[in-house]
Amino acid sequence: MSSTYGENLRVTVFGQSHSPAVGVTVEGFPAGFRADLDALQRFLDRRAPGRNEYSTARREADVPEFLSGLKANVTCGAPLTAILRNADTRSQDYDGLLTVPRPGHADYTAAVKFGGAQDHAGGGHFSGRLTAPLCVAGGLCLQWLKQRGVTVISRIAEIGGVPDEGELTASTADKEFPTVSDAAGAKMRERIAAAKADGDSVGGVIEVAVLGLPAGLGDPMFGGMENRIAQIVFGVPAVKGLEFGAGFALARMRGSEANDPFCVENGQVRTATNRCGGILGGITDGMPLRFRAAVKPTPSIAKQQQSVNLQTLSPETLAVRGRHDPCIVPRAVPVMEAAAAIAVTDAFLAGGK
Amino acid sequence: MSSTYGENLRVTVFGQSHSPAVGVTVEGFPAGFRADLDALQRFLDRRAPGRNEYSTARREADVPEFLSGLKANVTCGAPLTAILRNADTRSQDYDGLLTVPRPGHADYTAAVKFGGAQDHAGGGHFSGRLTAPLCVAGGLCLQWLKQRGVTVISRIAEIGGVPDEGELTASTADKEFPTVSDAAGAKMRERIAAAKADGDSVGGVIEVAVLGLPAGLGDPMFGGMENRIAQIVFGVPAVKGLEFGAGFALARMRGSEANDPFCVENGQVRTATNRCGGILGGITDGMPLRFRAAVKPTPSIAKQQQSVNLQTLSPETLAVRGRHDPCIVPRAVPVMEAAAAIAVTDAFLAGGK
Amino acid sequence: MSSTYGENLRVTVFGQSHSPAVGVTVEGFPAGFRADLDALQRFLDRRAPGRNEYSTARREADVPEFLSGLKANVTCGAPLTAILRNADTRSQDYDGLLTVPRPGHADYTAAVKFGGAQDHAGGGHFSGRLTAPLCVAGGLCLQWLKQRGVTVISRIAEIGGVPDEGELTASTADKEFPTVSDAAGAKMRERIAAAKADGDSVGGVIEVAVLGLPAGLGDPMFGGMENRIAQIVFGVPAVKGLEFGAGFALARMRGSEANDPFCVENGQVRTATNRCGGILGGITDGMPLRFRAAVKPTPSIAKQQQSVNLQTLSPETLAVRGRHDPCIVPRAVPVMEAAAAIAVTDAFLAGGK
Amino acid sequence: MSSTYGENLRVTVFGQSHSPAVGVTVEGFPAGFRADLDALQRFLDRRAPGRNEYSTARREADVPEFLSGLKANVTCGAPLTAILRNADTRSQDYDGLLTVPRPGHADYTAAVKFGGAQDHAGGGHFSGRLTAPLCVAGGLCLQWLKQRGVTVISRIAEIGGVPDEGELTASTADKEFPTVSDAAGAKMRERIAAAKADGDSVGGVIEVAVLGLPAGLGDPMFGGMENRIAQIVFGVPAVKGLEFGAGFALARMRGSEANDPFCVENGQVRTATNRCGGILGGITDGMPLRFRAAVKPTPSIAKQQQSVNLQTLSPETLAVRGRHDPCIVPRAVPVMEAAAAIAVTDAFLAGGK
Repeated sequence: MSSTYGENLRVTVFGQSHSPAVGVTVEGFPAGFRADLDALQRFLDRRAPGRNEYSTARREADVPEFLSGLKANVTCGAPLTAILRNADTRSQDYDGLLTVPRPGHADYTAAVKFGGAQDHAGGGHFSGRLTAPLCVAGGLCLQWLKQRGVTVISRIAEIGGVPDEGELTASTADKEFPTVSDAAGAKMRERIAAAKADGDSVGGVIEVAVLGLPAGLGDPMFGGMENRIAQIVFGVPAVKGLEFGAGFALARMRGSEANDPFCVENGQVRTATNRCGGILGGITDGMPLRFRAAVKPTPSIAKQQQSVNLQTLSPETLAVRGRHDPCIVPRAVPVMEAAAAIAVTDAFLAGGK
Repeated sequence: MSSTYGENLRVTVFGQSHSPAVGVTVEGFPAGFRADLDALQRFLDRRAPGRNEYSTARREADVPEFLSGLKANVTCGAPLTAILRNADTRSQDYDGLLTVPRPGHADYTAAVKFGGAQDHAGGGHFSGRLTAPLCVAGGLCLQWLKQRGVTVISRIAEIGGVPDEGELTASTADKEFPTVSDAAGAKMRERIAAAKADGDSVGGVIEVAVLGLPAGLGDPMFGGMENRIAQIVFGVPAVKGLEFGAGFALARMRGSEANDPFCVENGQVRTATNRCGGILGGITDGMPLRFRAAVKPTPSIAKQQQSVNLQTLSPETLAVRGRHDPCIVPRAVPVMEAAAAIAVTDAFLAGGK
Repeated sequence: MSSTYGENLRVTVFGQSHSPAVGVTVEGFPAGFRADLDALQRFLDRRAPGRNEYSTARREADVPEFLSGLKANVTCGAPLTAILRNADTRSQDYDGLLTVPRPGHADYTAAVKFGGAQDHAGGGHFSGRLTAPLCVAGGLCLQWLKQRGVTVISRIAEIGGVPDEGELTASTADKEFPTVSDAAGAKMRERIAAAKADGDSVGGVIEVAVLGLPAGLGDPMFGGMENRIAQIVFGVPAVKGLEFGAGFALARMRGSEANDPFCVENGQVRTATNRCGGILGGITDGMPLRFRAAVKPTPSIAKQQQSVNLQTLSPETLAVRGRHDPCIVPRAVPVMEAAAAIAVTDAFLAGGK
Repeated sequence: MSSTYGENLRVTVFGQSHSPAVGVTVEGFPAGFRADLDALQRFLDRRAPGRNEYSTARREADVPEFLSGLKANVTCGAPLTAILRNADTRSQDYDGLLTVPRPGHADYTAAVKFGGAQDHAGGGHFSGRLTAPLCVAGGLCLQWLKQRGVTVISRIAEIGGVPDEGELTASTADKEFPTVSDAAGAKMRERIAAAKADGDSVGGVIEVAVLGLPAGLGDPMFGGMENRIAQIVFGVPAVKGLEFGAGFALARMRGSEANDPFCVENGQVRTATNRCGGILGGITDGMPLRFRAAVKPTPSIAKQQQSVNLQTLSPETLAVRGRHDPCIVPRAVPVMEAAAAIAVTDAFLAGGK
């Protein structure tokens, strides 16, 4: 169902941008796990708005309140629910949007789907705000995976057409702007600043790698790691593309280039290259699981745009008010880690091996 | 679960490449639908092997036997099961592969996952042969959708680095080589032939468009049309990338370019461009739903490759025997249509609107 | 998964008896439905503790806070979440129970399942307190069904061996003690009082009827109305038996007595009797859907009981402290209505007909 | 969905009484399990029709053909599909039933649900014939459980009002008429014979016990063992009641009688009695899991019955032709074992403990 992900770990995200709270319920999280709530908060802070000049001015404390599932910070086997109150909402910014939908947003499609009953303020249930509770669930999964030797790292691979340089081999979590190359990062920031100055926005690409996975996770066909990751990653607003390993570039290789030769390292079967992104037949091969997600530019822009009045069907020009990120990519980086962690934890609990 | 797709239309694919049969069970197909089995057969024939010089020499009649769910060719509301017998199998071609896994295949990961019990012959349950029963289910969905004014068209968008030319606006189903530009198609064939001559293989990209969809199909977050399509498309062997609308190119646009302005055409809300691929917030907007899938080169190649003996952990060189397509892309085209049709039908039955 | 019920309407219950809150998330509730929160509160009050001498002294206001899914009391299509704070908890009453499990409770089995990490206070996630959020979800379903001409009625059919008299044909919701016969109800109260005086408890049977259902709801085999209702009703603590229509009595009839003859009433196909409880082949036949659930006596009793110290494996005698109902049946009556309403709404949304 | 049961072991039953075949697909069965197909056949033969004077004269060999999932009789991790051909069908016996539904059958409700498209011959997908593939799946689960020390036993507890005598402590599988007391069994046979002579039928009760279960299987709330077993048992045609442990009799006990005191036996926590049927809070406590299912009399009887012509809405008298069991209970005994085995195996694979 739409707002629930997973089979063995089941994550349900609820809330709207301007409802009293957003939150998440996690079923199936193993009992007896001691959560580090300080570390979780640090993880959530990476996603929180208002950290730098590129993000929305909306401020939310985003400290989760755990309503159930924890006893003295240890999971007790019951469903775990955490909520984040929505404090800094300005619903009046969205008053006209019930009749004139914003291009690039779900305003129009939600209106059709829910017959006009949708909570449109701030994008409602379609808002990027819903990635906050996703990060609560994912942050706990990251901690649980770490105990099993699995870590998730990520970076901004590209923004506004500027690619990062170098390989993603270590965490960029401590950086204010999570690229491997600081020089490339500086150029990306310039692109963001230029777009902002124009009342415009830019998109980008995020790369994620999951290290330390055993071989044998995932299932055939529709339960493969690609399928599982895709189902959650496309649930993050603005993601419009996804590729594993060399991805689209594989389509231009020959088989002899694309196939990763098997070899032995330290008594373990490995592959000499990793063009398949650590997944063969949907199942992990013990190499890093790698994927890249394409994020479209923030659709909320100050520039004038063409739209339509849904009641009169006459054309209207609109400039999006409200407080928005000129580039959502930096804040989406930890969200991608969270998404990957949830998908991998679910696969683990499926008895991956 | 791994071999089942869908919530309201539930499609379970079973069989291995060399088991007595492959097949499919479809639950939830609306009762009272008259299937056109001749049209279905013509659709299946587009996927069948042995049609031209680029496909495997394995010959299978691939005429489905319907075991249940149909009464005088009309769906009766009970689960519909169809099987396709596996006739032309040469399991001896695969004798050594239990110990020396083929690069790029699931041999190694399946061995780890199933503790050596996997049916490795012909790739077992991981074989592209499983797309035949998927096409039975998808072929019926295509017919059901057609009655609702929805059609699915597709093309080879790229092979071996050669792009097709022109826009995908009409079906290419009648073409032996389904590109829009025959000239581009001819170049692609040359690439395939060259790869084959080298004992190698090539990959490509397939583009699909679903026309005639109403606005309002799909659900928020993890139930969006992107998520639904991704979950089935990544179940097709060899798919390693997927993008909707302008996809990865959106990451390089500004918001003012990426956003599709709303307009009115014939009294209907439309968008002037379609960079979002007909999906906003996971929900269809009434424009064509467009996606592109990257298909890696056939991993089975005659060239020598490096692998490892799983028992001795010593390196081994292997050249894949068996009968294989130097390029799987042409046969995967109808499979993508089938996958799209299943995903869209499931969304329809979810009460999309 | 354990704490989620339903396919098209998905109800997830979370919380423990002594966690900060209990709550419920409902996915799939149709958008545009105006909830009557006053009527909902009146429904919840029927279940609330502390209403009479037979129920626990624990007092909870049980006014739900809606965190999401409602906009000005109208469902907006997003997941609906409501929470009820746990205020009047006395966890110290449960201090010894981690080592000496209470007979008839889940203390021991939860300890085994969750490796000692369970939140045992007040029964944790196994507590009858979790039926409060179930009633929030069910109460909304009752309102939604009423708009479709469907009503759910119920009664205490038996307590402590005393059967109610007369047929269940109208709501008993306005009664303090919901039996059809007040005289029978008076006798039942005497049994409860006598048990309480002995530091003991009694059980009973609850009967539910769903009126106004169309024929054609439910699905074959595992998706039948019996299966759907059973799956939710056995989720209510203390239910140990369930029968539809004449139920176990059918096992003693002949076919000629058990079969309900078809007839026509007011131009509608009906059955002259209703021994099948309105369900044939899992599907409603348009007659009232009837079931009866057996509720075991409250396991918490003041009398001395034999148990075991789980650490020393030595026998221990225990008398349950805490505040408990000598008979849970009266408060379980609206819970059964809620359960039935949820199951029926889910079947409706499955496109029952 | 309707014809699929289970979460971790997923069993999909397909086919109609008179379709080319009935069958079952099992997903999630552990790889590497060697099936004993001879033992499976002996199990299936217990359910097969035509074994004695009480069962239908329809003869089916009921030897499953395994289409997938087995390699040399060992499960390979892929979905396992087996089919049973329908050979001895006489569809002409059912010609009139599209317009005049049989009382007690699903003819009418299926007609409403599927808009007249249902395959009514022999009851279609609602036929008891569908329990044959269920027994294929359950028979394999029984073997798998046996390797884990878990056995399932059962008996006829009552037929036509005649109760069996004695306790169910050992398998009755070798008996032609599976009661504990042969004297009671003889009386039951008399009841069946008398009903048959009258052109009538009788129902009964089946008792099942699962021995050797570890404590800790099952999940809270809707995932409890009662819920899981109920969902599959009510999928067996004609079951209208279900109780666990002392079941409905618990409703008449006091708490001090109903609670099972804990004790220690051979260093293991046990209960001195087993009125809860081995389940507390939905989770196994290590004692035998016990349940009883009420089976209504075979609705197909030779006696004249009142029905309605669905086209003219005029009353019609009908006597059911076709070949039917005057009492389905004996053949349903192994079906109940199969159902229990599937439910328990699914709980095991959920990581029950």
